[in-house]
Amino acid sequence: MNLPKPDNVPPSVIWEDGALRLLDQRVLPVETAYLDINTLAQAIEAIRTLAVRGAPAIGIAAGYALARSMQAVPETAFLQTLEENAAALKAARPTAVNLAWAVDRLLGRGRQTPTYSALAEEAVAIHAEDRRICRAIGEAGRHLITPGARVLTHCNAGALAVSELGTATAPLYLSHAAGVPFSVYADETRPLLQGARLTAWELSAAGIDVTVLCDNAAASLFAAGAIDLVLVGTDRVTANGDVVNKIGTLNLAILCQHYDVPFYVACPSSTFDPHTATGEAVIIEQRDAAEVLGPATAQVPAYNPAFDVTPANLVTGLITDRGLIESPAEADLSGIFS
Amino acid sequence: MNLPKPDNVPPSVIWEDGALRLLDQRVLPVETAYLDINTLAQAIEAIRTLAVRGAPAIGIAAGYALARSMQAVPETAFLQTLEENAAALKAARPTAVNLAWAVDRLLGRGRQTPTYSALAEEAVAIHAEDRRICRAIGEAGRHLITPGARVLTHCNAGALAVSELGTATAPLYLSHAAGVPFSVYADETRPLLQGARLTAWELSAAGIDVTVLCDNAAASLFAAGAIDLVLVGTDRVTANGDVVNKIGTLNLAILCQHYDVPFYVACPSSTFDPHTATGEAVIIEQRDAAEVLGPATAQVPAYNPAFDVTPANLVTGLITDRGLIESPAEADLSGIFS
Repeated sequence: MNLPKPDNVPPSVIWEDGALRLLDQRVLPVETAYLDINTLAQAIEAIRTLAVRGAPAIGIAAGYALARSMQAVPETAFLQTLEENAAALKAARPTAVNLAWAVDRLLGRGRQTPTYSALAEEAVAIHAEDRRICRAIGEAGRHLITPGARVLTHCNAGALAVSELGTATAPLYLSHAAGVPFSVYADETRPLLQGARLTAWELSAAGIDVTVLCDNAAASLFAAGAIDLVLVGTDRVTANGDVVNKIGTLNLAILCQHYDVPFYVACPSSTFDPHTATGEAVIIEQRDAAEVLGPATAQVPAYNPAFDVTPANLVTGLITDRGLIESPAEADLSGIFS
Repeated sequence: MNLPKPDNVPPSVIWEDGALRLLDQRVLPVETAYLDINTLAQAIEAIRTLAVRGAPAIGIAAGYALARSMQAVPETAFLQTLEENAAALKAARPTAVNLAWAVDRLLGRGRQTPTYSALAEEAVAIHAEDRRICRAIGEAGRHLITPGARVLTHCNAGALAVSELGTATAPLYLSHAAGVPFSVYADETRPLLQGARLTAWELSAAGIDVTVLCDNAAASLFAAGAIDLVLVGTDRVTANGDVVNKIGTLNLAILCQHYDVPFYVACPSSTFDPHTATGEAVIIEQRDAAEVLGPATAQVPAYNPAFDVTPANLVTGLITDRGLIESPAEADLSGIFS
C-alpha cells in the first residue's frame, strides 16, 4: 500500500522553536507563501481574513498563536494577559467552534500552570491530536468510497484546512492510497473559491481525479445520476446534530434528499458543540459585500453569509474520529462526544 | 402611474438604416459599448461569445444579422446563400430555440419573397413582436408581485436579454411602475455573472431594490423564509413543459419544492419547442473550462454546462404572452402555443 499523498501539500501551520508560521491560503495555489505570526494582532488578522481557514486549522493556529503571545509576558501579568488574549482571539471568527475550543483548552492549562512552556506543550498536543483525529475519520469513512464512486465535496475540508489528511478528504486520501479508483467533483465554492483554489489543488497534487464545477451546476450532475455521495466538512455540529458549514452546504443536502444520494459530514470531536441546542441558535457570520461584488459587477448590496445550517434530518451520517454515526437526527450525540 | 423605467437600460440590439449594432454584454456594466455587425462571421462570433445573450435577444439579433448578410447578395445566388447563412447562424448556439425560430422565420419569408427588403421587414417585425410579448408577459405575471414580495431571480432574463421590459423582469418593471413595493434577490450566476453584472445593474438602474448573492447562498435565504417567489426566464420549453434555462435554474426549482415556494418561468411563445418531447432530449451546450477556472484556481478539468433542465412538475407556472399557465406538467401546452 502506498502512503497517503498529502505530503505533496504544504502544511497549513508550522511551529518550530516557538516560532509560528501560517500558510497564506488566500494566495494559493498561485503562491506558496508563509506568514510569520509574531503578535496576537497578526494572528487575529490571519484568522479574520482567512489566511488560515478550516475549523481545525484555525484551532491549531489559535493554540500556537495564544502560546506565542505569552512568550515574553512576566509572571505577575500572566493570567490577566492570557485571559485578555484568549478573549481577543476567540472574537476573530465567532462561528468556528474549534477556535474557542482550542483557546479554552490553553486557558484551562494556563490557569493550572501559568507558564509559556505549558501553553506551548498544550498547543503541540492539540496539533498532534488533530493528526490522529484525521486518520481516525479516514478509517471511519473509507468504506464509503467504493470503487468507481463519484464524490461531490464543497469548500475545503482537506489537508489545508486541518492537518495531514484533512477531515472530509481523509477517507479519500486513505482510499486513494489503498488503490481504490474513484473521482471527485469539487464545487468551486463562491465567493472565495476554496474548492477551485484549494480542494482541487490538493487533491490533484495527491494524484486524485478531480473536476471543478460552479456551485450552481451540482443539481445537473445529480439529475444525470453522476453523484454517488456527498462528503463535506463542518465548522460546528450542534447538540441535535445540525451541521454549520460553508455557505452552500445546505443546498447540497437538499439536493441529496431530492435525488436520494447519501450526504455525509466529516466531524472531528472538536467541532461538536453540546452547548448549542440547534443550528438556529448559531449566529451566522455575515461577510463583506466586496467578497461577492467586484469591478465587473453592478454596485448594489450583497447578501454574503459565511455559513449555512443543514438540519440534522438531512444528514445521512457523521464521520467522526469515534466512528460513523448514521442518522444523527435520531442519535444521542451527547453520549458519543462526552 | 410612472412609466416603466428600463428606458435607463441601453437597448441590446439596434437596427438603423440596415446597419446592425449589438450591445457588448460581456463588458457590462463597466463599459457600454456597441459592436458593429457587418458580416455573418461577426454575428456568429457575437452570439457564440455571449456578446449578445438571452434567448429572445439572440433571436432578434439573428434575424437582423441574417437580413444584413443578404444585403448585397445577387438575385441568382440569393436562396442558396440564404440557406447557407441560415444554417451557419443556427449552429452558433444550438440550445437557444429562438435563434432557430427567428432564422427559420426569415428563411420562410425569403423563400416566398427572395429579397433583402422582405428579410429586413421580417426581422423588424420579430423585434416589434418581442416588445409586445414582453409587455403581455408583464401583464400576465404582475399580480404575482404582491406588496412586500421578495423575489429571487437567476441569470438575466431582463431588458438586456430581450427587448424593452424583458421576460422575467417584465412583471417586475410593470409592478414597480405601478408603485408596488417589492425587493429582488439576484443570483450572481456563475460562471459569467449575468446576475451580478446585468440583472443587478438593470434593476438598480430602474430604481428597483436589488441584492446580489452567490448562487450557493440561495438555500439559506429559503431556510430563513426570505423568498416568496422565484421568477426566471427560459431558453427553451419542451412539449411536456420541461424548462431549459441557465445552469442553476434546476437547483432553484428543487429549493422551491423543498421550501414550498412558487417557481415561475417567464416563457415567450418563441421559446416553446413543440418538436422536442422532453428536456432529456435537449443536447446541453458544454462550455469552455476557462470560464470556470482562472489564474487563481487549480488547473484541473471543469464541468461547465451552459444550461440545465427543470422538469415540468417542479414548475408552478409559465408566465406567457398568452396568459399564465398554472401547473404546466398537467396542461396541454400544444393547444396554447399552436
